[in-house]
Amino acid sequence: MPFQIQEAIEVLERTPQTLETFLAGLSDGWLACREGEGTWNVSEVIGHLIEGEKSNWVPRLEFILREGESKPFPAFDRHSHLKEEPEKPIGQKLHEFKTIRARNIAKLQELVGDARQLERTGMHPAFGTVKVRELLSAWVVHDLTHIAQIVRVMAERYRTDVGPWSQYLGILKKAPSE
Amino acid sequence: MPFQIQEAIEVLERTPQTLETFLAGLSDGWLACREGEGTWNVSEVIGHLIEGEKSNWVPRLEFILREGESKPFPAFDRHSHLKEEPEKPIGQKLHEFKTIRARNIAKLQELVGDARQLERTGMHPAFGTVKVRELLSAWVVHDLTHIAQIVRVMAERYRTDVGPWSQYLGILKKAPSE
Repeated sequence: MPFQIQEAIEVLERTPQTLETFLAGLSDGWLACREGEGTWNVSEVIGHLIEGEKSNWVPRLEFILREGESKPFPAFDRHSHLKEEPEKPIGQKLHEFKTIRARNIAKLQELVGDARQLERTGMHPAFGTVKVRELLSAWVVHDLTHIAQIVRVMAERYRTDVGPWSQYLGILKKAPSE
Repeated sequence: MPFQIQEAIEVLERTPQTLETFLAGLSDGWLACREGEGTWNVSEVIGHLIEGEKSNWVPRLEFILREGESKPFPAFDRHSHLKEEPEKPIGQKLHEFKTIRARNIAKLQELVGDARQLERTGMHPAFGTVKVRELLSAWVVHDLTHIAQIVRVMAERYRTDVGPWSQYLGILKKAPSE
């Protein structure tokens, strides 16, 4: 089935509220745990999602629609959210994510009113030619990737607590750093 | 840090509402897609979570507290939810999961009022001796495993749509059947 923007929006608009429902009010034990040194905790993942809203998805969409393939869009620093000091509380981050995502979905609907625009092309700095619909699908799968990361990081906390059940729990089957 | 029942409950009580926020009202395209033949779609995963509430976690806890290691608890059929016909709508399943989970958390709090009970042991039919706290941690990680499965199944739908972004999207890096 061909890519349909309305189905992509169904996921994009649910992610922030889903994460708020799951994460708001959790103990620090859940929010601060990591899969190992140099990996992100849950709160840092939310910071990365906010950064993507600010500098990645919609800015790149606007860039493609404005410039086409004439020049590559600026690279996105996937670690820039870690530079922010001091760390904001998770509740504030979740709220910020919800607000900026809602604004970006409104912008998306305004910018891509017509299915033909899904075929417009731009120049990714590493990939070369990319289509608007590839960018939008990647935005959705990026949400799904980071929801998966959040639950994987949390599961890590109970790796030894589950005892022999670890062999039935797929999420624990990979090495912590994977 | 030693296992604390209150932290386990924080996750257990959030899972149903989180899934309802994420899944209720999604198009059939998202709810019906699979990772391949013989794998579960999103709706079947919710069926499995309901089945776990009915026949696995709390029933086993009660069994351990009643029988100790004197006899193994009955095996849990991980595919029993697939036998149910006809398939219920996802909204109804999500509601059912929420209701039965709330009841089970109340039962859990009633049964394990004292941290010493976390060390009580029972006999798993395959693993041998298991502790109450291992069962309860496994219940939490089981939720996390199936949230991860749900987003992985959904991501699969856009595997080709994302074009070159697939190399940056960790969730797509494994083979569909893994």
